Amino acid sequence: MKLQTIIPDHERLFLDKDVPEAYKTDHSWKDVAAVKAVALPELEQEIIDLVTYANQEDLTIIARGAGTGVAGSQVPTKGGEVIIDVHRMNRILDLDEETMTLTVEPGVKLQEIQEFVERKGYFYPPDPGSKNSTIGGNIATNAGGMRAVKYGTTRDYVRELDVVLPDGQKATLGSLNIKDSSGYDLKDLFIGSEGTLGITTRIKLKVLPMPKYKQSVILAFDSLKAATNGVLSILKNGVEPAALELFERGTIEYSEKFTEKKLPSQKGDAYILMTLDSNEQEDLSRRVSFTENLLKGQAAEILPLSTPEEEEKAWFLRDHILVALMQFTEFEMLDEVVPINRFAEMISYTKELQEKHGINVINFGHAGDGNIHTVLMKEGMDEAAWQTKRKAYLDDLYSKVHELGGLPSAEHGIGVIKKGYLEKMSQPVEIQLMRKVKRAIDPDNRLNPGKVF
Amino acid sequence: MKLQTIIPDHERLFLDKDVPEAYKTDHSWKDVAAVKAVALPELEQEIIDLVTYANQEDLTIIARGAGTGVAGSQVPTKGGEVIIDVHRMNRILDLDEETMTLTVEPGVKLQEIQEFVERKGYFYPPDPGSKNSTIGGNIATNAGGMRAVKYGTTRDYVRELDVVLPDGQKATLGSLNIKDSSGYDLKDLFIGSEGTLGITTRIKLKVLPMPKYKQSVILAFDSLKAATNGVLSILKNGVEPAALELFERGTIEYSEKFTEKKLPSQKGDAYILMTLDSNEQEDLSRRVSFTENLLKGQAAEILPLSTPEEEEKAWFLRDHILVALMQFTEFEMLDEVVPINRFAEMISYTKELQEKHGINVINFGHAGDGNIHTVLMKEGMDEAAWQTKRKAYLDDLYSKVHELGGLPSAEHGIGVIKKGYLEKMSQPVEIQLMRKVKRAIDPDNRLNPGKVF
Repeated sequence: MKLQTIIPDHERLFLDKDVPEAYKTDHSWKDVAAVKAVALPELEQEIIDLVTYANQEDLTIIARGAGTGVAGSQVPTKGGEVIIDVHRMNRILDLDEETMTLTVEPGVKLQEIQEFVERKGYFYPPDPGSKNSTIGGNIATNAGGMRAVKYGTTRDYVRELDVVLPDGQKATLGSLNIKDSSGYDLKDLFIGSEGTLGITTRIKLKVLPMPKYKQSVILAFDSLKAATNGVLSILKNGVEPAALELFERGTIEYSEKFTEKKLPSQKGDAYILMTLDSNEQEDLSRRVSFTENLLKGQAAEILPLSTPEEEEKAWFLRDHILVALMQFTEFEMLDEVVPINRFAEMISYTKELQEKHGINVINFGHAGDGNIHTVLMKEGMDEAAWQTKRKAYLDDLYSKVHELGGLPSAEHGIGVIKKGYLEKMSQPVEIQLMRKVKRAIDPDNRLNPGKVF
Repeated sequence: MKLQTIIPDHERLFLDKDVPEAYKTDHSWKDVAAVKAVALPELEQEIIDLVTYANQEDLTIIARGAGTGVAGSQVPTKGGEVIIDVHRMNRILDLDEETMTLTVEPGVKLQEIQEFVERKGYFYPPDPGSKNSTIGGNIATNAGGMRAVKYGTTRDYVRELDVVLPDGQKATLGSLNIKDSSGYDLKDLFIGSEGTLGITTRIKLKVLPMPKYKQSVILAFDSLKAATNGVLSILKNGVEPAALELFERGTIEYSEKFTEKKLPSQKGDAYILMTLDSNEQEDLSRRVSFTENLLKGQAAEILPLSTPEEEEKAWFLRDHILVALMQFTEFEMLDEVVPINRFAEMISYTKELQEKHGINVINFGHAGDGNIHTVLMKEGMDEAAWQTKRKAYLDDLYSKVHELGGLPSAEHGIGVIKKGYLEKMSQPVEIQLMRKVKRAIDPDNRLNPGKVF
């Protein structure tokens, strides 16, 4: 069989030199190899045929969604790979209101899922900053985002996955059953495996009823330290935020410039942007007042956002930090995570390292989860100096993350970029177990080789 | 090394003919073999040494907790096994209020965990009927219980697991981090694996703040069908129960006889026992009234339980159904689960089969999860007739479960009892994947061989 037989439509198949440059990179990684082909399947059977073909020809395969990754999870590193780009498999197939389950193809974008279910009165909680990422990609990295503090991560919303295995067989993992004590939990093994165990072809997602009321609040603080203390007060005192974001003024300024909007608060050096939700208006109002009383001595300003437009603007600014940084500067963004009681210590350490290594650093992140996006600013630095300083900074940073019981990646994945750090921060036995599982399911190292470990 | 060197204390080691009979069975399975030894370690190092010894001597190992299993998961079936009984590893080690994490050994009983955290104002939601089961056993089967409808199952409360692997190495799986995109999810692979991949030696559990208010309600119905309709009304209309149990009069009567207490409602043929919880008294009262209005046309009686004593009595009766059945009669209890929209159809099918196969059947179960405990009554039937009828009944029942998208076990595990049905109800590729994972992690089939698949 030839690739042209499997994908007969020439606009869905690029070979060798015709492969667009975009496929050789993601939002983080440049040192890549030439691929053999890029195929854009529209049907599960085409994926099965592509994987079967790769087995016959002994080729390796990388599945790819929107290419918004930032860990080098989907980039070709060896040369000669076949990339399967699923972004044309982008249909929303069914909303089953009896089981509250949405069935989608892997190339559907997060934003389309959110908008679709919201129109029907439902709610899909996982909310990574990149709304253009695909659900297939979200599953590959167990994406988290803004609302994990209350609602959990992508993993918690996947009921069932159809996957094509490395040998071309199809399997359905998980089910619509709420309880399961029937054999190994293969579904959770595949979620977060960054395309190294199988290619997702169809997903059944759990959706929730949309909470009736919500209210966002901006809290401005004079210092990053005061803001992290504010985070801990909120978490300890039963405010129960649905989202609890923290960002330094330095990060939101990029977003203000990019979006040409202003954050409703302009005081202070660091902000908390928080959303509360509830099915009772009174309950919501009570919790907003409680927060105001709790933090009035600590915050420079507390602004409950009173109109949907203001709320939308504040969140639009938050969501565009990354895009704005990409537009205006050169940088590297991390996604370290630590247990919540070590969050303040971790974030303050990122600033200590700034002095030590001479790299400017700004932070934003999902404070309620202990997940920080530390941004190392390359700015005008020459490449050699950057590589040296960056490495020294990261060595120190990840050692501290490890010391505090944290992990190198909360939601972006390990890819190629964090492989060395994952290995350093794990027990050897853990990496051995992962390798054993990989070899058992993909003995020829057919799917996305060289990633994760 | 000899077993006596590893476990020097003779009351913690039984050899060959001195092994107490209790170790050859659980609450379900009798056709067992003679074991080589039973060891009762008190330290993780003793478990490591026992597993190392088993590797040297080429013996197989079965880890065991309280022996309350009902699927034959921990029974010796081959002969010559070493049983590791962890029930003396029963210390509660630490409650970390900053991360809201409880650290325990595997032999701690569920009831002790619940009582310990409740005294400190916290809440451990998983609530299997058998309060004497150990947390290690709960993890081995991903136990569910009463509150899964709102709070999820054991899996959702395990943050970190220390395990001894089949080769005697120790690994820590999971972490206190709320988000994780750092390699394969080994923790969830081990949870629910029924002791076939590793032996748990220490667990970090997530606990929640105790909800401030709760209220239980009994709803009596004239028929099982009316009760299942009531369940669906409750689930569809936003009542948000924390527990939603259904039982037939026939089951609760055993419990009434055993406990010498009476259910507050004596009307009707089937009951819903429901608990609502909230941090707001008003919210709770509103939802109770809403439920009364919603179901007043359908229920024969609706009784909000007004005192803690009444609530406790009702739940005590519910919790003792299984023990009472064991006391007074011979039976086989199932734990099938179907998607929630097929629950009514499934439960009514169990009654159709009663006529067809001449076996009396009574049902209770976790209605909010689609998880039914169908009880086949052996009563006075002779063994040969029972085996024939039972098999015919189960063949029909599990075919229906499969047709409705359900699973053979919601929370008890597959063990030896449901192996054949799991295989029949799964795709071959799924069982192959499980076997591949098992072989990769336990190539000598050292841990609990012959269980699950």
